[in-house]
Amino acid sequence: MARLSDRVRDERIAADLAALAELTDRSQPGYTRLAFSEEDRRARAWLTDRMAAAGMAVQVDAAANIIGRRDGDARAGGAGEALGALVIGSHIDTVPNGGRFDGMAGVVAGLEVARVLQEAGRRTRHPLEVIAFTNEEPNAFGLSTMGSRSMAGKLTADRVRALRDPGGRTLAEAIDFLGGSAARLETARRPPGAIAHYLELHIEQGPVLDREKAPVGVVTGIAAPTRLRVRMGGRPDHAGTTPMGMRRDALAGAAEVVLALERLAAETPETVGTVGCLTNHPNHANVVPGQVEMLLEFRSIRPDRIAAVRGKVLEAINEIARRRNLDVTWEFLMEERPVPIAPETVTLATAVCQEMELPYRRVVSGASHDANHIAEIAPVAMLFVPSVRGRSHCPEEFTETADLAAGTRTLLELLLRLDTRP
Amino acid sequence: MARLSDRVRDERIAADLAALAELTDRSQPGYTRLAFSEEDRRARAWLTDRMAAAGMAVQVDAAANIIGRRDGDARAGGAGEALGALVIGSHIDTVPNGGRFDGMAGVVAGLEVARVLQEAGRRTRHPLEVIAFTNEEPNAFGLSTMGSRSMAGKLTADRVRALRDPGGRTLAEAIDFLGGSAARLETARRPPGAIAHYLELHIEQGPVLDREKAPVGVVTGIAAPTRLRVRMGGRPDHAGTTPMGMRRDALAGAAEVVLALERLAAETPETVGTVGCLTNHPNHANVVPGQVEMLLEFRSIRPDRIAAVRGKVLEAINEIARRRNLDVTWEFLMEERPVPIAPETVTLATAVCQEMELPYRRVVSGASHDANHIAEIAPVAMLFVPSVRGRSHCPEEFTETADLAAGTRTLLELLLRLDTRP
Repeated sequence: MARLSDRVRDERIAADLAALAELTDRSQPGYTRLAFSEEDRRARAWLTDRMAAAGMAVQVDAAANIIGRRDGDARAGGAGEALGALVIGSHIDTVPNGGRFDGMAGVVAGLEVARVLQEAGRRTRHPLEVIAFTNEEPNAFGLSTMGSRSMAGKLTADRVRALRDPGGRTLAEAIDFLGGSAARLETARRPPGAIAHYLELHIEQGPVLDREKAPVGVVTGIAAPTRLRVRMGGRPDHAGTTPMGMRRDALAGAAEVVLALERLAAETPETVGTVGCLTNHPNHANVVPGQVEMLLEFRSIRPDRIAAVRGKVLEAINEIARRRNLDVTWEFLMEERPVPIAPETVTLATAVCQEMELPYRRVVSGASHDANHIAEIAPVAMLFVPSVRGRSHCPEEFTETADLAAGTRTLLELLLRLDTRP
Repeated sequence: MARLSDRVRDERIAADLAALAELTDRSQPGYTRLAFSEEDRRARAWLTDRMAAAGMAVQVDAAANIIGRRDGDARAGGAGEALGALVIGSHIDTVPNGGRFDGMAGVVAGLEVARVLQEAGRRTRHPLEVIAFTNEEPNAFGLSTMGSRSMAGKLTADRVRALRDPGGRTLAEAIDFLGGSAARLETARRPPGAIAHYLELHIEQGPVLDREKAPVGVVTGIAAPTRLRVRMGGRPDHAGTTPMGMRRDALAGAAEVVLALERLAAETPETVGTVGCLTNHPNHANVVPGQVEMLLEFRSIRPDRIAAVRGKVLEAINEIARRRNLDVTWEFLMEERPVPIAPETVTLATAVCQEMELPYRRVVSGASHDANHIAEIAPVAMLFVPSVRGRSHCPEEFTETADLAAGTRTLLELLLRLDTRP
């Protein structure tokens, strides 16, 4: 049976990504297109042209999000025009010295979906929107996911006027530079029902799909990070003269905490835990460490698992501190909620992969995306494509074109099923 | 039975230490008398006067070591003048923001021993020398134990001319400033036999004697530090997207090394082991640590225990690296030999304590002292007095006068026994 997705063409996807790779700051290493830069503006102009060429009506909202829209088929359901939009979104800004795929893969996939629909003369019941969100990556103003945050109604005109980059430019000025309108930022907010379903294709930024040779990952949830700062205090004694039994070694205590979190995360399904940051004082070869500061982080897609790790890691920290006679304090810096993805959406996506005979994996998203914010105003779905060797946010970031195309086909078929779902 | 040591007077010891505490740099916090400073020169002038007042002939050798000498009693053994000297030594320089006892305790004890002998009209068979070694603490020229090192013949005129402090002064100039003669530094070397026995009283700089309420510690050996730099390399993956089973977490590996060394040292008698220095890269909350550098140190007074810990810690590091798929390199930065103290000397010292009914402990010296170098040219003995709460190298460094006097009495009685030993 011929599918609409058979019309997805690998070479168009590759050409679009190559064009975007050219539209970067050539004075910088790797691929650098910071949000609100001249390169960003040039790439956005290019994208606007491509959307128009794919038959979409393009508008830029107050948050400078670029929205390409194909109207829905009023004939399909009678009340077609009243249906919320099916939205395919991601971003085209990069981190400094970044890659060619993070964000861009999803926007280009949306573009290809729109092109295929146009070429086939196929109109969806729901309106279709392809959105390039403004500024997903951490910016110089101390914020990230600026565009999707605004669409979810979580950013105000006052706030963006107050945030300045090190050069003194306000975020409001930066938004206006891209063609947005910071003064009326609140108009970027989408009311409930305006988006019937949000879909995002993204590179995995992790090693699972590449390792398991699966071109498509069906995301079952977006994990939320919990982050805490832990300080352990002992006594900075002379390392030569203080017998082992009389020490209060803060680093030895911290080492047990590192291993305890690692063990707890490994024991808990679909959960990760990391001590990424550890600073030792006074950090001299011949002084027993007197003070250690650590940042602990753990992520899971299930609130019950987050709560379990939270409780057990605090218990472990207390037990270690008590046994070693160390002082301990902690402070939660971040406690986000995981983003659920409806089981029926996951089932629909896996069914598509099975029908297309595409190898797939059910995966969790360990990183946050624009989808995190849109999830507050609409149901979301996410598809991953492999990141070779898990690399991301670096020039070596890579995804095979064939995998991108497989992901795009899955995205289109999933879109069609969501469109025709009763 | 009246002992000569009954004449040791607490208040003279306290007064000498108080006088030295005044001769510090009052513009600095704590007690600061850096070697080669104006304060050092003033304190040395004071000490020279005190030695002369105690009936000693004072000379300054080419290394600027201050040597107070009482001739031996030629009548005692016929060949008395040919006997090597009994030497009591330590130092009077401090670390920055240091204390009032480290080094000074030993010099003041020697001074009191000389005074008691003089007052009693008692002449020893061997000549007696009280030595204040130049510059025991780490100096601005990148060296420590400069005076005792020179006396052991391990420092050359060329070397001290080549070493400069950050201000550009050479160590040779600094030695000359104190009244030494850097150009003929090699003359400071004592030939074999010149020192019959070396004795040093020092504060423990550790918590054992204070904890066990023993005023005297009979040192059974001076532990030698072995120090190695270990680098563990993993992969700096995204902390959210990399499943636990696919990580190469350098910090988790390093944490196991910290705990392995701690366990090995605790299992080995009279041995300590410390990871005092640990630096984590890239040290970001959301990145799995990709590289860790550590300084490991362990100390023991027995070569067989040093060899055992050395072998087992390398074995543990290899096993951890292999199991975790980490790259590992190590480099030995220091492999010193422990300084043995003759069992008969230890027996003599403990016998003295028993006769005087002084509580004592056999202890190891975890820190290095001037005795380390003198041990290369003479047999050595060391006595410790308690450091309250083990504190040292800080203004809170403290030893009770009664304990200092008890140590001084032990020192004098031990000296007399060594003097009359066949």
